[in-house]
Amino acid sequence: MALVVQKYGGSSVADAESIKRVAQRIVSTKQDGHHVVVVVSAMGDTTDELVDLANQVSPLPPARELDMLLTSGERISMALLAMAIANLGHEARSFTGSQAGVITDSTHGKARIIDVTPSRIRDAIDEGSIAIVAGFQGVSQDSKDITTLGRGGSDTTAVALAAALGADVCEIYTDVDGIFTADPRIVPAARRIPDISYEEMMEMAACGAKILHLRCVEYARRYGMPIHVRSSFSNKTGTWVKTSIEGNQMEQAIISGVAHDRSEAKITVVGVPDKVGEAATIFSTLADAEINIDMIVQNISAAATNRTDISFTLPRADGQAAIKALNKIKDQIGFDSLRYDDQIGKVSLIGAGMRSHPGVTAKFFGSIADAGVNIEMISTSEIRISVVVDQDDVDAAVTAAHHAFDLDADQVEAVVYGGTGR
Amino acid sequence: MALVVQKYGGSSVADAESIKRVAQRIVSTKQDGHHVVVVVSAMGDTTDELVDLANQVSPLPPARELDMLLTSGERISMALLAMAIANLGHEARSFTGSQAGVITDSTHGKARIIDVTPSRIRDAIDEGSIAIVAGFQGVSQDSKDITTLGRGGSDTTAVALAAALGADVCEIYTDVDGIFTADPRIVPAARRIPDISYEEMMEMAACGAKILHLRCVEYARRYGMPIHVRSSFSNKTGTWVKTSIEGNQMEQAIISGVAHDRSEAKITVVGVPDKVGEAATIFSTLADAEINIDMIVQNISAAATNRTDISFTLPRADGQAAIKALNKIKDQIGFDSLRYDDQIGKVSLIGAGMRSHPGVTAKFFGSIADAGVNIEMISTSEIRISVVVDQDDVDAAVTAAHHAFDLDADQVEAVVYGGTGR
Repeated sequence: MALVVQKYGGSSVADAESIKRVAQRIVSTKQDGHHVVVVVSAMGDTTDELVDLANQVSPLPPARELDMLLTSGERISMALLAMAIANLGHEARSFTGSQAGVITDSTHGKARIIDVTPSRIRDAIDEGSIAIVAGFQGVSQDSKDITTLGRGGSDTTAVALAAALGADVCEIYTDVDGIFTADPRIVPAARRIPDISYEEMMEMAACGAKILHLRCVEYARRYGMPIHVRSSFSNKTGTWVKTSIEGNQMEQAIISGVAHDRSEAKITVVGVPDKVGEAATIFSTLADAEINIDMIVQNISAAATNRTDISFTLPRADGQAAIKALNKIKDQIGFDSLRYDDQIGKVSLIGAGMRSHPGVTAKFFGSIADAGVNIEMISTSEIRISVVVDQDDVDAAVTAAHHAFDLDADQVEAVVYGGTGR
Repeated sequence: MALVVQKYGGSSVADAESIKRVAQRIVSTKQDGHHVVVVVSAMGDTTDELVDLANQVSPLPPARELDMLLTSGERISMALLAMAIANLGHEARSFTGSQAGVITDSTHGKARIIDVTPSRIRDAIDEGSIAIVAGFQGVSQDSKDITTLGRGGSDTTAVALAAALGADVCEIYTDVDGIFTADPRIVPAARRIPDISYEEMMEMAACGAKILHLRCVEYARRYGMPIHVRSSFSNKTGTWVKTSIEGNQMEQAIISGVAHDRSEAKITVVGVPDKVGEAATIFSTLADAEINIDMIVQNISAAATNRTDISFTLPRADGQAAIKALNKIKDQIGFDSLRYDDQIGKVSLIGAGMRSHPGVTAKFFGSIADAGVNIEMISTSEIRISVVVDQDDVDAAVTAAHHAFDLDADQVEAVVYGGTGR
């Protein structure tokens, strides 16, 4: 008998029929002899509808009240799911994030989990019930106010709860069969990855693979909680995200997959005087404006002018705010101009095996060049290489790299590759 | 500076525009220098929509989960109302029933309030905020589960909170200008009642006046909390429900108003043997089936047969359950048959003054007879006389009684008379 935490996203509980289908799956896990704790997101478009309502009464709703409003979404889905399970003859009890002991800080809209005290959940499963927990929400330690966890919040709730309960596995249900070596909409020959390490999955998530959020993988890694990403439409094994046991894997794949991201923009600060502290001033200004920077590239300065260019990428949504913040310090820094480009895409090659295979970088760049794609920026980590290319070249670069590293499947699997909600 | 508790029903917050209008009214009370605590129901049809969703996943949803589901309704309306107030430049904080300290028993769907510990509400108003509280809901003392209070729940929340906070007044906002001497849809000349005692209001509520629920008036009477029933569409004074100071009212009206109720049915148990304990058996059987009985009439038994008929009225919704329960004890009791009539209506005359005016009963019956209406059952209390008539005769009886006791206004007020939600 295992303790299984299952997480179902908004698309899995979009309507009454979907909720009944998910209830069947939960009951069948229970009937296999396992304890089951379920984390659920709000139904389909509920969150968007609530945000729309909020905007109708206030152009800038207070964050505390927006959290109060949005958390009603999971309250609805979890109660309905508990009812559907009860209708199949099994006892189910729903719990809000607060009731489940999800304690957070007070940052409304993107609260961090600081403790999980799931005594009520443990009591419920000890008494033979299936516990249904609202994802994406918690209660603040200081003010006892309702908080939401922001992007990736429901997945993170599931992993955090699984860790606190000492669960055997955290199953994340989605509408695809697992994590793929590339987006199958771009590379039809993409294969499901059966196993991937936390580190590789974090790089995949950070580089645009949308199935799991970086934050949830980080949490799972910290507690060594195995995640099983699988489809709510089939019983197939999906992708296991867990600690890599390198010694055991004689033939570990060099490369896990190719990720891409079209949501970023690139800013170049042209003609920055090559003085100590200039880069620090630029990036602390951006940090003060709460702008998250991804890649940063700075070349050595031209000897003649003693000036250099600094380029960085950032979420496109933050582009205008960044330009505004930088223009305010233009005279202080003394740079020449700013260039903004939102027609970029990032293509990343991820694989723990590349550590010990020095030829990977050259092969990656070569495959992209052979596809006739120009590389604008490069950034690397120990297990990842990312390049920025023209947005129109993303598909060609992904396909070329996927093929060059022998990731193509012999047979094309039929999959639908969708985004995730919370 | 007073402490004012205001309650707004579902129709007052049916959409974004209504919510903004209510926010204006709340802010204007605050600007008059008062502390304001607001109790709010779910928006318009939200509750019906949620019940519909529940029925889609389960024919008989567990009561605990139904409460969890339905309480999301107030969560939405209260957060939106707080946002709308914030948008007008005033701080507002929303609180669930649980956060507001509304402690109940564990009877899901119709929980009773057993304590109110509103320390967070007090803190909020002490800090200058407007507190918005979800009506209709609480948290059970034993299991810490979310409960709903059932019919009249939001009004009762408002009165209970007002009592616990020591508020100066509990204002119940509705879509009419107050309590009227009769339903203006039946009697266009009906007048607004400026003041009414708790006792009379309780009789009015029990006899079909739908503006205030009996339960909320009972609660207010117990704590001596003045209720001001008024329209959310105007600034007019409505009806004050409070302790009657009879000595001060030289010209207290004999009759407060005429109420009617078309929601009941009548059951006659024909040919009950006139033995000790037969009536007790009948009504304990009905009590065991959780059927609420209203009027009961038993005549003396016919000398020849030593058998009698017992008639009673009950909510029409409970009719079939009552028939079923009684048929089960038919042989035990030995009655002849059951007669069921749901084409009845109850007309009640209410007034504290009738205690000292012996002619009231005769005048009431006379007015109904003059209107050509046959009386089927009669029941009286110290301050009320009720008769059961044919449902088609209700309007005629109400109109005749209203006129006979000089309740007609000189001028007809333009009012819309609607039902209340929770």
